[in-house]
Amino acid sequence: MYRADIFSRLRISLMHAYRSHSCAALTAANVGDTVRLSGWVHRVRDHGGVLFIDLRDTYGITQLICDPDSPVFAQVEKVRSEWCIRIDGTVKARDASLVNPKIPTGEIEVFVRDIEVLGAAAELPLMVFGDQEYPEETRLKYRYLDLRRDAMQQNMKLRSDVIASMRKRMWDKGFREFQTPIITASSPEGARDFLVPSRLHPGKFYALPQAPQQFKQLIMVSGYDKYFQIAPCFRDEDPRADRSPTDFYQLDLEMSFVEQQDVFDTIQPVITGIFEEFGGGKPVSQDWPLISYADSALWYGTDKPDLRNPIKMQVVSEHFAGSGFAIFAKLLEQEGTEIRAIPAPTGGSRKFCDRMNAFVQKEGLPGMGYIFWRDQGEGMEAAGPLAKNIGPERTEAIRQQLGLGVGDAAFFLGGKPAAFEAVAGRARTVIGEELGLTETDSFKFAWIVDFPMYEADEETGKVDFSHNPFSMPQGGLDALNGDPLKVLGYQYDLACNGYELISGAIRNHKLDVMIKAFELAGYDEAEVHKRFGGMVNAFQYGAPPHGGCAAGIDRIVMLLADEANIREVIMFPMNQRAEDLMMNAPSDPQNEQLRELRLRVLPPEA
Amino acid sequence: MYRADIFSRLRISLMHAYRSHSCAALTAANVGDTVRLSGWVHRVRDHGGVLFIDLRDTYGITQLICDPDSPVFAQVEKVRSEWCIRIDGTVKARDASLVNPKIPTGEIEVFVRDIEVLGAAAELPLMVFGDQEYPEETRLKYRYLDLRRDAMQQNMKLRSDVIASMRKRMWDKGFREFQTPIITASSPEGARDFLVPSRLHPGKFYALPQAPQQFKQLIMVSGYDKYFQIAPCFRDEDPRADRSPTDFYQLDLEMSFVEQQDVFDTIQPVITGIFEEFGGGKPVSQDWPLISYADSALWYGTDKPDLRNPIKMQVVSEHFAGSGFAIFAKLLEQEGTEIRAIPAPTGGSRKFCDRMNAFVQKEGLPGMGYIFWRDQGEGMEAAGPLAKNIGPERTEAIRQQLGLGVGDAAFFLGGKPAAFEAVAGRARTVIGEELGLTETDSFKFAWIVDFPMYEADEETGKVDFSHNPFSMPQGGLDALNGDPLKVLGYQYDLACNGYELISGAIRNHKLDVMIKAFELAGYDEAEVHKRFGGMVNAFQYGAPPHGGCAAGIDRIVMLLADEANIREVIMFPMNQRAEDLMMNAPSDPQNEQLRELRLRVLPPEA
Repeated sequence: MYRADIFSRLRISLMHAYRSHSCAALTAANVGDTVRLSGWVHRVRDHGGVLFIDLRDTYGITQLICDPDSPVFAQVEKVRSEWCIRIDGTVKARDASLVNPKIPTGEIEVFVRDIEVLGAAAELPLMVFGDQEYPEETRLKYRYLDLRRDAMQQNMKLRSDVIASMRKRMWDKGFREFQTPIITASSPEGARDFLVPSRLHPGKFYALPQAPQQFKQLIMVSGYDKYFQIAPCFRDEDPRADRSPTDFYQLDLEMSFVEQQDVFDTIQPVITGIFEEFGGGKPVSQDWPLISYADSALWYGTDKPDLRNPIKMQVVSEHFAGSGFAIFAKLLEQEGTEIRAIPAPTGGSRKFCDRMNAFVQKEGLPGMGYIFWRDQGEGMEAAGPLAKNIGPERTEAIRQQLGLGVGDAAFFLGGKPAAFEAVAGRARTVIGEELGLTETDSFKFAWIVDFPMYEADEETGKVDFSHNPFSMPQGGLDALNGDPLKVLGYQYDLACNGYELISGAIRNHKLDVMIKAFELAGYDEAEVHKRFGGMVNAFQYGAPPHGGCAAGIDRIVMLLADEANIREVIMFPMNQRAEDLMMNAPSDPQNEQLRELRLRVLPPEA
Repeated sequence: MYRADIFSRLRISLMHAYRSHSCAALTAANVGDTVRLSGWVHRVRDHGGVLFIDLRDTYGITQLICDPDSPVFAQVEKVRSEWCIRIDGTVKARDASLVNPKIPTGEIEVFVRDIEVLGAAAELPLMVFGDQEYPEETRLKYRYLDLRRDAMQQNMKLRSDVIASMRKRMWDKGFREFQTPIITASSPEGARDFLVPSRLHPGKFYALPQAPQQFKQLIMVSGYDKYFQIAPCFRDEDPRADRSPTDFYQLDLEMSFVEQQDVFDTIQPVITGIFEEFGGGKPVSQDWPLISYADSALWYGTDKPDLRNPIKMQVVSEHFAGSGFAIFAKLLEQEGTEIRAIPAPTGGSRKFCDRMNAFVQKEGLPGMGYIFWRDQGEGMEAAGPLAKNIGPERTEAIRQQLGLGVGDAAFFLGGKPAAFEAVAGRARTVIGEELGLTETDSFKFAWIVDFPMYEADEETGKVDFSHNPFSMPQGGLDALNGDPLKVLGYQYDLACNGYELISGAIRNHKLDVMIKAFELAGYDEAEVHKRFGGMVNAFQYGAPPHGGCAAGIDRIVMLLADEANIREVIMFPMNQRAEDLMMNAPSDPQNEQLRELRLRVLPPEA
């Protein structure tokens, strides 16, 4: 044995059992070194008796090379994609022509002198290398393979880093994280509870919290000023693309002795900071407008507007009242009706207008009237049947109100706003996108404020809470003695690019106001005590004014990762039927378990 | 109105609605300032028409003063303990004789000019001010009052700060935190699962994880190197003082491509750092011995030894074999028996020895023989009946082996170690404490290693896993082909001051070894696939060697807070019957809920 070999073996025997370097660490400076690497076989190429293997770990990729000069060539020949291996070898410089400047290890390769198979792999149901698409069921069943793919590695690291950054930012603001109970009492937030049967108290059930709402309010009553939690929440909801069917996470926070603006001033720098840190350099709006719920509905047809779209709808009823366009003129004679316009700058072609009209018909409305303005040679001409019906003066007044000109269009919807508002909002989105008016590479935020406390059921007229029953009504007890449908709450949402990212409120900490608020929604005092006893009792012992909010973490990461499906940013998500195909959940209980819980499962027909 | 008053009112109108300062902020530098404070009335003292109020928030206490010169004297007179109030007032210097140097605000007081009652309080079931003790049920039912007490405020802040520090330390080591599912499949860790009935799949159940064990191993198979999580764990166990009956938290971590020592090197600086940061200056041992499970049982009678106690037990069988002490001599003729000594330096008095003997009798053993050495005037004398029975030579040999002298004692227990080991361990604890040998103000750590993989049931002889079935057996497949009871696992615990703080293992990532390991414990391959299908499947696709551990956070905080009851370091704990008296959990489900889940609760006699 040559002395160099002995020396090299000695060095290896002193090495770590699995690696001297990660797969992202070796550079030209290591040429000549004896190294030990572990990782997965990303891909194997056989160049006529010379094997090239990309060895991958979570940090990067290193190219291995092996030929018959290696004592372990026969073993290296056997490895296949996704085998987990450990190799020892010598770092060599690549030929200049083979240098890959795109990866940190692109200047070197490692000549394999020893190999250990740490974990072989059976035939793969899903390839890690390459961009092949697989059905979601396959990806979820073999999630451990799916997660090895580069895009998923990046998404999960992003998620982890976003949450870490949130925590640091909250700590820096003097907040402490407190854990609230998970096996607890029902904390209704409008969805179904997941129940947990009690073994020590058979027949009784715990519930998993839909949110730590009551507990965080109790933390305020307990005298802690600034609470936050990266809180798991549990809602037994029917699954959707942007919603996890079981557990999901919120950045939950609450503060005492604050007003609405204090909450905004606290969370805004956290969110802008996160989006600037992880948003890939896309501009993040710094000036967050406060838009009332009513204005948002009028301007954008939704309470989660996408402000990257510059289109703002307007009321144009006056121009149609008593006009020659009989449909709208008649409509306006009914109480509560309005005509609203969607201005569409650069949308001034019949083809475009007809396509948009078809869109709203597909969405279930009879159609949209429209006017578009074109250059007629000797001046501007307003085209479309509507313009003819109402005549040039009204048409011009509309154009001036909307600030439109040649090449632009406007669409019109009429009736009771509730009947067309949502479709108008969707039409605004499509118009903005199709005309290229909507920015694509930015994040724009707005606070939606002044939510109504109550809404009336359209058929029965019964008044119920429209959002969170625990919000403080603006105007307090006095306001509750008037028309409930006019009462606004100190309740707010943060909208970003068409998503609701945050929801929150200044809470109702006054027991008399709370009892009255529930009474208006048809709950008597006994019912309030029964349903929210813990919090109601606590409010009798010196409750401070308080408020807060909760930010949807999965959704924030979705936005930052530019993914449309929440399962792309959750490590081990359920499928759309709330099943875990990898772990086989839910599954049949053991009889012994049911016996201990004193439960019987009834047959389907029962 | 004087101009100064107008000015002061203007300033107040520009103030925050609730406070210009916290209750810990004002110092002599603020004298003359108009300020606004909010907080709770800690206590009220009436000094003959002059009211002194300690106003408290989470940051501190400020003394308020009010007399009939104040326009709001009549309102201030009405406030009672734990009312939440907002006041405006003027900062005044206290008389030199009234300065309190113990609090930051001790040099000033605030003369109250305006007051608003934010939340009045009903008669208090529990006083926040003072040190009165209350039954735990009262404290838990009115937890929001209990949590306002200084000791609880400090405990909760400590807990929050400990967890924050853990996270920072793990991030600094290159670990990322990943959330694993909470509503999932059973992940058995030896306790009962909490079940969650599925609404979408009636009759089937999810389980809450007893630990993220399988998921963290799947994260390793997914190619992430370094995972940690402050993980909620759920075990349906019968409650104990140092165990939460429902959910509790672990610092859970896992690493790929590591051996046992790598895990130790990773977690030791995290734990020492935490104990140095939050341990109140108590010394933290830096040199953590590795003690085998067998040695720990022999030396300390437990696998969670308290090394602050210097006593180390020893085998002294040879001195009793064939001796004149017939009980031990006969005992030693039986297979598997031993005589062990507990040396007790400074314990050399008959009174003490008799008391210790009585202790083990109370613990269920027939008693302990003892020898103690005293100065007899013309030399040392070995006293006690045992010494007489075995004679001076053997007695002296024992003394020399144990390194004892005048004033010391030694206790002796004999039989099969399993029958007396635990009691011997408790006797060692009591001896160390009573003799003042055990340090009280330090933290001493030791790794307990080389746990046996299997144990045999004493009656049936059936072999089963003694600890974690997923640990890698030392010696791999070869070892499993020998005597199972001799197989040790790469499994380890961290003991600190008599508590088990961490448990972990290098995992068995080789499917053939795992199948064999389960076979020895009586589980066939089909059963392994059924119970641990997710992980077993994953191990077929290139599993890396990996290992990790989990640290009990509640217990660490208990130690740091010097509390003996885990409920002192949990914000909203269950009581010992796993009930939440504040929130009323568990409770009766609604019929509609049971119908949706297709469940029926059986009557008790069923």
